[in-house]
Amino acid sequence: MKLLRVGPAGAERPALLDHDGILRDLSGLVPDIDGALLADESALATVRDAAQGGALPVLDQSGPRIGPPLGRIGKIVCIGLNYHDHAVETGAPIPAEPVVFMKAADTVVGPDDTVLIPRSSVKTDWEVELAVVIGRTARYLETDAEALAAVAGYTIAHDVSEREFQIERGGQWDKGKNCETFNPLGPWLVTADEIADPQGLTLRLWVNGELKQDSSTANQIFPVAQVVRYLSRFMTLHPGDVINTGTPAGVALGQPEPKPYLRAGDVVELEVTGLGRQRQVFKNA
Amino acid sequence: MKLLRVGPAGAERPALLDHDGILRDLSGLVPDIDGALLADESALATVRDAAQGGALPVLDQSGPRIGPPLGRIGKIVCIGLNYHDHAVETGAPIPAEPVVFMKAADTVVGPDDTVLIPRSSVKTDWEVELAVVIGRTARYLETDAEALAAVAGYTIAHDVSEREFQIERGGQWDKGKNCETFNPLGPWLVTADEIADPQGLTLRLWVNGELKQDSSTANQIFPVAQVVRYLSRFMTLHPGDVINTGTPAGVALGQPEPKPYLRAGDVVELEVTGLGRQRQVFKNA
Repeated sequence: MKLLRVGPAGAERPALLDHDGILRDLSGLVPDIDGALLADESALATVRDAAQGGALPVLDQSGPRIGPPLGRIGKIVCIGLNYHDHAVETGAPIPAEPVVFMKAADTVVGPDDTVLIPRSSVKTDWEVELAVVIGRTARYLETDAEALAAVAGYTIAHDVSEREFQIERGGQWDKGKNCETFNPLGPWLVTADEIADPQGLTLRLWVNGELKQDSSTANQIFPVAQVVRYLSRFMTLHPGDVINTGTPAGVALGQPEPKPYLRAGDVVELEVTGLGRQRQVFKNA
Repeated sequence: MKLLRVGPAGAERPALLDHDGILRDLSGLVPDIDGALLADESALATVRDAAQGGALPVLDQSGPRIGPPLGRIGKIVCIGLNYHDHAVETGAPIPAEPVVFMKAADTVVGPDDTVLIPRSSVKTDWEVELAVVIGRTARYLETDAEALAAVAGYTIAHDVSEREFQIERGGQWDKGKNCETFNPLGPWLVTADEIADPQGLTLRLWVNGELKQDSSTANQIFPVAQVVRYLSRFMTLHPGDVINTGTPAGVALGQPEPKPYLRAGDVVELEVTGLGRQRQVFKNA
């Protein structure tokens, strides 16, 4: 299923994009798309049955705002340097085990919402990523099968990053990762049963129409199952948590001087196979 | 006011410790102690008036479980190396600007709850900290006065840390900071009007009755107002967010080999002037 949330920011209603591309209202069936729903197999089955029955109310097709496809997000765990070519372009060694950092859930906006360049920022950068949405509590998992069973579905995350804040201002990367609006998410939460192989997805990102990132999750150093299993040794993953699984090469940081960091008016578009497309206009905060 | 939450984990009710040390029930007045309450001056005034009127129902004084004093926590932003003596004991340079990392809200437990030593952990360490609770949105603040006006109150945070995960496993500190139960919080959220000077508080921590940390927030490199103002340039702070403002010297990491990391059965007690006392028994996960 392609689950999504439509409507004004903070007042989105749950919806579904059916096999014919028709937007259907789920608000009569479930209160929201969130960790509680994803952990509730019987509620999910009800949604699935209603979708197959074709009886769900049709929503306005004229393009309501699409919000993030998940409400009440718990935590966002991010994997750094998870593609060889991106590690090389940033001058970092290939990690021996996953590099982990955190993004606050309040950075999440809809896939087509405006992204704000922080005041005094000169190095705002893009990063297209496959995001994993957790549907079952994951704690000290031992096998890849258990790890994949904890995954409710997938979506696109734009892990917007301010490189000066991240790298040159002392300490940890989090300082450049938690600016407001820095995590567009969506458009759809595609349930795991529709993604045959999370390691076979093409990721692409364009800035002002120019292709900047073009890779595949096949190039991840630590694939999704291994990431989930690994994280579960260090923290408990809960339904409604999100994992940003890292970005491939092609970010501004990796390019020759003068590096083409984002400026107000720039338009970034992102696409991952089967997960839809995002488009953001960048503005000054 | 000393606000707190009592009852079983996940089902705490809001309460108040009055001037006579009597536990009073707030559940008839407010649904919870959370960011929404802290941002609502009229609701806070109602609580204050009721407390002064002395008419709030008395709760069982025989020692119900005390939960974290804040529900629906947004994000937890942590300041690293914020005391000279702690930076020195860890071998780190004195930071030129605040070091920032993140802790997920799901790590929070009550002040006297069990803390779990992660499986395979050999370097679980303690850190007593002054925690700041945000009550007003903070975004690009310019003055210390604006910063302090955004602070709803103060509490104690135990920033439990696994040093091998934090420092020796590649990448960022977050890996050793987000283990389950790693952020005991409380017992009370003391409103800012009762803390005359957040830079004049004594912090103490004992392990099995032996005093390990004994310092004052006067020794913070970046005081509370500066931390809030600084953070507001990099991220938006929302009501219900928490800032762990750093720990002074005396952690296990800073001691000679063999460093006395925590083991199952160890008891850690923490105290900050005017903010009460925590006591945790450590167990294996």
